[in-house]
Amino acid sequence: MIIDKKSIPWQDRPEHFKDIMWRYSANPIIHRYDIPGSNSIFNSAVVAFGEGFAGVFRCDSKSVQMNIFVGFSKDGLHWNIEHSPIDFKTGNTEMIDSDYKYDPRVTFIDDRYWITWCNGYNGPTIGIDYTFDFKEFFQCENAFLPFNRNGVLFPERINGKYLMLSRPSDNGHTPFGDIYISYSPDMKYWGEHRCVMKIAPFAESAWQCTKIGAGSVPIKTEEGWLMFYHGVISTCNGFRYSMGAALLDLENPGKVLYRNKSYLIAPAELYETTGDVPNVIFPCAALYEGDKVAVYYGAADTCVAIAFGYISEIIDFMKKNAL
Amino acid sequence: MIIDKKSIPWQDRPEHFKDIMWRYSANPIIHRYDIPGSNSIFNSAVVAFGEGFAGVFRCDSKSVQMNIFVGFSKDGLHWNIEHSPIDFKTGNTEMIDSDYKYDPRVTFIDDRYWITWCNGYNGPTIGIDYTFDFKEFFQCENAFLPFNRNGVLFPERINGKYLMLSRPSDNGHTPFGDIYISYSPDMKYWGEHRCVMKIAPFAESAWQCTKIGAGSVPIKTEEGWLMFYHGVISTCNGFRYSMGAALLDLENPGKVLYRNKSYLIAPAELYETTGDVPNVIFPCAALYEGDKVAVYYGAADTCVAIAFGYISEIIDFMKKNAL
Amino acid sequence: MIIDKKSIPWQDRPEHFKDIMWRYSANPIIHRYDIPGSNSIFNSAVVAFGEGFAGVFRCDSKSVQMNIFVGFSKDGLHWNIEHSPIDFKTGNTEMIDSDYKYDPRVTFIDDRYWITWCNGYNGPTIGIDYTFDFKEFFQCENAFLPFNRNGVLFPERINGKYLMLSRPSDNGHTPFGDIYISYSPDMKYWGEHRCVMKIAPFAESAWQCTKIGAGSVPIKTEEGWLMFYHGVISTCNGFRYSMGAALLDLENPGKVLYRNKSYLIAPAELYETTGDVPNVIFPCAALYEGDKVAVYYGAADTCVAIAFGYISEIIDFMKKNAL
Amino acid sequence: MIIDKKSIPWQDRPEHFKDIMWRYSANPIIHRYDIPGSNSIFNSAVVAFGEGFAGVFRCDSKSVQMNIFVGFSKDGLHWNIEHSPIDFKTGNTEMIDSDYKYDPRVTFIDDRYWITWCNGYNGPTIGIDYTFDFKEFFQCENAFLPFNRNGVLFPERINGKYLMLSRPSDNGHTPFGDIYISYSPDMKYWGEHRCVMKIAPFAESAWQCTKIGAGSVPIKTEEGWLMFYHGVISTCNGFRYSMGAALLDLENPGKVLYRNKSYLIAPAELYETTGDVPNVIFPCAALYEGDKVAVYYGAADTCVAIAFGYISEIIDFMKKNAL
Amino acid sequence: MIIDKKSIPWQDRPEHFKDIMWRYSANPIIHRYDIPGSNSIFNSAVVAFGEGFAGVFRCDSKSVQMNIFVGFSKDGLHWNIEHSPIDFKTGNTEMIDSDYKYDPRVTFIDDRYWITWCNGYNGPTIGIDYTFDFKEFFQCENAFLPFNRNGVLFPERINGKYLMLSRPSDNGHTPFGDIYISYSPDMKYWGEHRCVMKIAPFAESAWQCTKIGAGSVPIKTEEGWLMFYHGVISTCNGFRYSMGAALLDLENPGKVLYRNKSYLIAPAELYETTGDVPNVIFPCAALYEGDKVAVYYGAADTCVAIAFGYISEIIDFMKKNAL
Amino acid sequence: MIIDKKSIPWQDRPEHFKDIMWRYSANPIIHRYDIPGSNSIFNSAVVAFGEGFAGVFRCDSKSVQMNIFVGFSKDGLHWNIEHSPIDFKTGNTEMIDSDYKYDPRVTFIDDRYWITWCNGYNGPTIGIDYTFDFKEFFQCENAFLPFNRNGVLFPERINGKYLMLSRPSDNGHTPFGDIYISYSPDMKYWGEHRCVMKIAPFAESAWQCTKIGAGSVPIKTEEGWLMFYHGVISTCNGFRYSMGAALLDLENPGKVLYRNKSYLIAPAELYETTGDVPNVIFPCAALYEGDKVAVYYGAADTCVAIAFGYISEIIDFMKKNAL
Repeated sequence: MIIDKKSIPWQDRPEHFKDIMWRYSANPIIHRYDIPGSNSIFNSAVVAFGEGFAGVFRCDSKSVQMNIFVGFSKDGLHWNIEHSPIDFKTGNTEMIDSDYKYDPRVTFIDDRYWITWCNGYNGPTIGIDYTFDFKEFFQCENAFLPFNRNGVLFPERINGKYLMLSRPSDNGHTPFGDIYISYSPDMKYWGEHRCVMKIAPFAESAWQCTKIGAGSVPIKTEEGWLMFYHGVISTCNGFRYSMGAALLDLENPGKVLYRNKSYLIAPAELYETTGDVPNVIFPCAALYEGDKVAVYYGAADTCVAIAFGYISEIIDFMKKNAL
Repeated sequence: MIIDKKSIPWQDRPEHFKDIMWRYSANPIIHRYDIPGSNSIFNSAVVAFGEGFAGVFRCDSKSVQMNIFVGFSKDGLHWNIEHSPIDFKTGNTEMIDSDYKYDPRVTFIDDRYWITWCNGYNGPTIGIDYTFDFKEFFQCENAFLPFNRNGVLFPERINGKYLMLSRPSDNGHTPFGDIYISYSPDMKYWGEHRCVMKIAPFAESAWQCTKIGAGSVPIKTEEGWLMFYHGVISTCNGFRYSMGAALLDLENPGKVLYRNKSYLIAPAELYETTGDVPNVIFPCAALYEGDKVAVYYGAADTCVAIAFGYISEIIDFMKKNAL
Repeated sequence: MIIDKKSIPWQDRPEHFKDIMWRYSANPIIHRYDIPGSNSIFNSAVVAFGEGFAGVFRCDSKSVQMNIFVGFSKDGLHWNIEHSPIDFKTGNTEMIDSDYKYDPRVTFIDDRYWITWCNGYNGPTIGIDYTFDFKEFFQCENAFLPFNRNGVLFPERINGKYLMLSRPSDNGHTPFGDIYISYSPDMKYWGEHRCVMKIAPFAESAWQCTKIGAGSVPIKTEEGWLMFYHGVISTCNGFRYSMGAALLDLENPGKVLYRNKSYLIAPAELYETTGDVPNVIFPCAALYEGDKVAVYYGAADTCVAIAFGYISEIIDFMKKNAL
Repeated sequence: MIIDKKSIPWQDRPEHFKDIMWRYSANPIIHRYDIPGSNSIFNSAVVAFGEGFAGVFRCDSKSVQMNIFVGFSKDGLHWNIEHSPIDFKTGNTEMIDSDYKYDPRVTFIDDRYWITWCNGYNGPTIGIDYTFDFKEFFQCENAFLPFNRNGVLFPERINGKYLMLSRPSDNGHTPFGDIYISYSPDMKYWGEHRCVMKIAPFAESAWQCTKIGAGSVPIKTEEGWLMFYHGVISTCNGFRYSMGAALLDLENPGKVLYRNKSYLIAPAELYETTGDVPNVIFPCAALYEGDKVAVYYGAADTCVAIAFGYISEIIDFMKKNAL
Repeated sequence: MIIDKKSIPWQDRPEHFKDIMWRYSANPIIHRYDIPGSNSIFNSAVVAFGEGFAGVFRCDSKSVQMNIFVGFSKDGLHWNIEHSPIDFKTGNTEMIDSDYKYDPRVTFIDDRYWITWCNGYNGPTIGIDYTFDFKEFFQCENAFLPFNRNGVLFPERINGKYLMLSRPSDNGHTPFGDIYISYSPDMKYWGEHRCVMKIAPFAESAWQCTKIGAGSVPIKTEEGWLMFYHGVISTCNGFRYSMGAALLDLENPGKVLYRNKSYLIAPAELYETTGDVPNVIFPCAALYEGDKVAVYYGAADTCVAIAFGYISEIIDFMKKNAL
Repeated sequence: MIIDKKSIPWQDRPEHFKDIMWRYSANPIIHRYDIPGSNSIFNSAVVAFGEGFAGVFRCDSKSVQMNIFVGFSKDGLHWNIEHSPIDFKTGNTEMIDSDYKYDPRVTFIDDRYWITWCNGYNGPTIGIDYTFDFKEFFQCENAFLPFNRNGVLFPERINGKYLMLSRPSDNGHTPFGDIYISYSPDMKYWGEHRCVMKIAPFAESAWQCTKIGAGSVPIKTEEGWLMFYHGVISTCNGFRYSMGAALLDLENPGKVLYRNKSYLIAPAELYETTGDVPNVIFPCAALYEGDKVAVYYGAADTCVAIAFGYISEIIDFMKKNAL
């Protein structure tokens, strides 16, 4: 396996800039109207594939129907997104109907790409499908009962089992939410649910005091699984989503080794502070190559942007700045 | 009567632009501070009048008192709005006092211009007045009991009766709302209330899943009454108002023939995504000439903008894209 | 016309009892299971009819469907309620379908009995029908747009117009509500809406500080229209409904002459403090004969009870105890 | 296996009583203070065991800590409940700690008694344990992620899999809730989640329009699985819980064959309408013998009561009275 | 000073009854209609005075105006309550106007009786007055800014300062609330505010997990200040108020030595579970004599009842049953 | 004392600009990232000090911890803000711990600078400290019990007493709030609480209809104390904060002489309409020199900006435009 080892998108840290992560200067890389009929393209996942990259994109139509679309790119920056949503075949279930699909993540495990997303089945839950080639997609059983969001798979099995992070929710704009882990022997039945990370106290780390949710597929490092996640604060004018990172134990990923007290990036650019939902940074994927990492995030529920950083710096910062 | 037959404001569709409706390049046409003491000018109605156009404008003062003002324009783009609100004489009622007035619409019927607006009488309801000359205005009985908003009259009587669309509400930032039609023999007593259009299912057309309200005075076409309306989605950061259109049956306007599944325009420009209430497009009037139509809409509860389109294309789109 | 002149139910004030109104010692007169399949019978209206009395009863079934039923009684205390709900014929409308019906009132005007009730048409509004004989019922247009409850007609026309009290509401367990009056030339179109009575300040008369609603058909007295109404306070354990009375101007019933600051009766007996909705006294009808009046009220949304009083004492008390 | 075949508690239908189910005349059978330190004993499950019956009881202490206790009875009416809560050993999990436990159900499958309950693990979810003898109890993995309540197992495996009904919830007094079914090969990992029954429309069957939840372990009949469940309506004074029944397909229990439109019993007796939570009937278990069934239900979150009926009549009624 | 040393009301513990506190068998001692025009009499305070006892009573009128009234009793069980509310003279303030007054407490300090109550001044805050003879009452400055409730003075000064417990609130049916202590050199200016007791965790002592408030004037014992307080749990059908006790440090009463994990009494009798606000036990005063204590509490916001106990047993129980 | 008599920041009114106050053309003067680790710098107070100016700044860190920092400036426009928050010594209290600190104000009284701020002590209340030199800071007792915000001291004692304005709140994003005044003989004990200014009626001055709070330290003028304050309206997309002014009586500052009906400035520039909390103008300080005044305000909870005006014009406007 050499995925994630090709040239990822990259831009050096701007001179005099001192933060741990920095934005791509040409952000957003994908605009809201980049495919016909789209209202917005955001909260999307990318992965190394073939000579370049493949991705699964959340494109809300102008009827504001939420669905997921395949796209391809040579450089990870310029994307050709298909104009029709993914059409599913039967995987390990006959039930391949959904009310809506949004916020996909993509993980390569063993021999195939697994996609998880927020699937509408009488409320949001975690949908699963797999593909070998990003042409044919096979839908599987939903992982959980409603209500759940932000299901993220680990890129390898541990003790033979698949692992999924998720955030139990309710059926609206959930004003609470912690990150859990669940295990499955077969991607069909899930159990051994454990709470991994809770929201932070308001007085200590208010940017993540309302709810948190797993973002990118965890990256295996020598020190642990590095996961980017979003945290939410509830202001008098609504939710504000920022991005942090956590390091999970390699063998028992239900254990948090370190976790950011400070966020890594929070909404500040105009494409983050204005849009369909102002003040949202929502990471869904990360490409890495050596120490470099490029995090893809949805901005303002409207477009897709990238931020860069060095894995080693991010982990160092996490240790010095632990919650 | 040849109203609405003079030269309306117009600008051709931008090259390479493919959407059904497009914005005026010099939007907004009216700015928040365009009259002394105004905080914002938005959600306003215009109509052909004399050699040009007249309008009734919602101008909130810097004390954020809501009132309606007369204005005149030769080209529909540059407006002289009076600096004092409309002063009413007695029409068919002695009760011409109001707590506040907002969101006017103007309709020419038979021999006079009828203005409807959201009238504060122990809560919002539909106020009515008429004028022959936009100099003297005669207030009539409120059409309904509180609580109601978005009262829009049809431009002609059917079977001798006046028809009004409205949206029953509650006394706050109503999180629900459908469009109804009511009939009156005399503009004083109203009845035969029927539900015309309901909100759409979240999974099918989420931009209009929270509430909807009639926008412009319906335009009579061969295929039906064309009405622009607003639809609202409730995001975690508040309401977002977009614009769609519907075609109502010519003889029985309580019957919807077609209705947009996709919106026609939704907040995306900075004057729509920022302002006193971010992410609002609120149509209140439409001028047409042949196949051309210019829709006036309030943007972000702050200013007035215009969008253009062809009636035939809008109706075609509605048929292909029906909810 | 000699309705309401026959012997009404009556029981003298208990010795040593000093309140203005007193309960019937055999309350409740109608129990929850008095007809097959009923869950509860309450909030019902009675009227003198033929040799005795007729009534329209709210009977919720064991599926908790709400509907209205006819009943007859010789003495006003013992009732035969039919086992099927009222079946409507077409009156002045073709639309005789309802989602549900509840809380009826009955008024004799001119030559027939008019029944008003809370009619489910995409939310509660005021349904109207008439009958000459309590056998055939003719449904008319709903008086108003949703959302409305507690529509009560006056027993005679004034200046040729029908008058209706009502309480604009919202679509749930409305936590606000004032009493309005509306006029109609024909029982089909309604207008001239005026606010009659508002809720009372918490510090002055808290039992009616959350919402109020007309109860019985107004009784014409020399001093004015006497109307029993309910007032609601919002406790930390829900709403509590009590009963008061108001005197409205004979010629302009939109004008309140006097209104109780104290309630007349409030929930205190076990059949009032326990039941499907604890702590509810909800008057819907009043029979009178000379100075005597018997008020029928729903208790705890479960059963029907009666309270007695002298009209002259009630009016005297209202004057001395005016809000 | 001959469980549930011994003499169950029974009392014939009272003369002249016509409802499908009737209450035990000596209700409640267990009172709130029946063990030292208890505040209330309710929402409890019983099962045939040995020469008599065993049960698992929700006893809230006077600190209002919620826990589950074992009890035994010879006749199903008089119970000896232990004074200390159940102490768990490790079953298929090491995690046997709980924040609280409530609302147990008991099912015999194959060779042992399985107990499910609402288990506090950062919010309510479904706890599982088994016992062979009601002396030693072995805690297993929680079935689901939070938030969930009312987990009820089927008394036998179908296609080798265990089946559980449950009601996904949120973390408070959930104002919504439908019944789902999930499958497990091993009582550890769960999947194949399907929605079984949704709340009913307000206008059709309002007693179950807010939320519903499985009650007793389904009883296998020739016509299908008979399950008693609770339905909730939201009144202006809080929730009201009533009891209905449904018949699920024998081979595919995710399919509802019939379901009560009317409730079977609803709060009406003083021990149901008053107590810690007024107006609650909450079935948790059913014993049957031939055609006779005795349903155990919690009353007013305070005590335990029984209602009786004939299975054949209940199913007949369900067919004639289907939602 | 020998107040509280005369014969207090007393009744021995019922045989076989094992709880720490028990109710008076003739409860309630004061009924809702015990004075003319009253709707309810509850949440009231008593104190030894002269040859017997004096009290300050919350009597809500039939207009549900809340006010406080003086009463006298020889035995503490039979009370003569005056028919007009207390009329205030100027104490240390000119502002003796109030929107409403409720929930009084009475404390003898030095040479006079101090009364504190919930005083309506643009919302609830703590009103203060003093009397020497229960004939003339002198109103003082409100202790705090709104919003506050349950202000209770200590019966002696410590380090020359007055001490008051209170519960900061908001302006409605506050769903939160902890007990604070404040100090004053002069009963006019207050400071040194400290949090004394917080609500308990839901999983440990749910009866006091929503809000708590000081009840009776603390009783000085050798082991500390004994204070009865109320705790509230929020059920799906509203708040439930129960009574516990705490022991505060003699020299630093801001420090809790012990505090009940279990409640002492909770609503169970019909006069506690039904009434204007079901399920309320609200202690406001305690008389003691040697080891005996009689606690006066409001029941269901409707009437006044008494519970008895032995101080030594209550303290022992608190130690064994500490939160 | 000659503070506030040196050269304040100033810029003349732009030509043709007619409003009473105008923004500094180089706004914002302090940006969100101006010190290392800051997320935002806003709602801050400045005062003349030494040869220039000192200030106390609210800097939220990137963990969104809220704290207050000292800064210095020669011209009031360019600021050196320290990189560590203020470290407190013991003043008149031993309790110098806080959960968080925000929204400071600074007042010179007699011989020292007093700082008030929103102090986290089990919820927000008013913290107090003093400094002579902006090097050493001495924390004092919190002025009030929770919950309170926007504590502002008068710059001199009246009748020997300190005076503080504040706004009683609740523990969340308080949707109500009026301005009160309290008195203290010693900065430790507070009393004589009076309501000074309430919110305005929606129909008259909606920008201040939800809540209001004192902003800058009152400026003594011949006509009264001039205070800038914020007012809030609740839109469907959240709170909008604007700035007004009031004139309080010189001898009895609890009495409002005049108060703006119109706001002075409201969010309109992009740095006010976008940011962490869109649409916020929050004044915390004012420097004046002769007739000129410079008001410092937080913008969008993100940065600091200045607006200018003439005191005489502001007072004139207030008189002509009084609420």
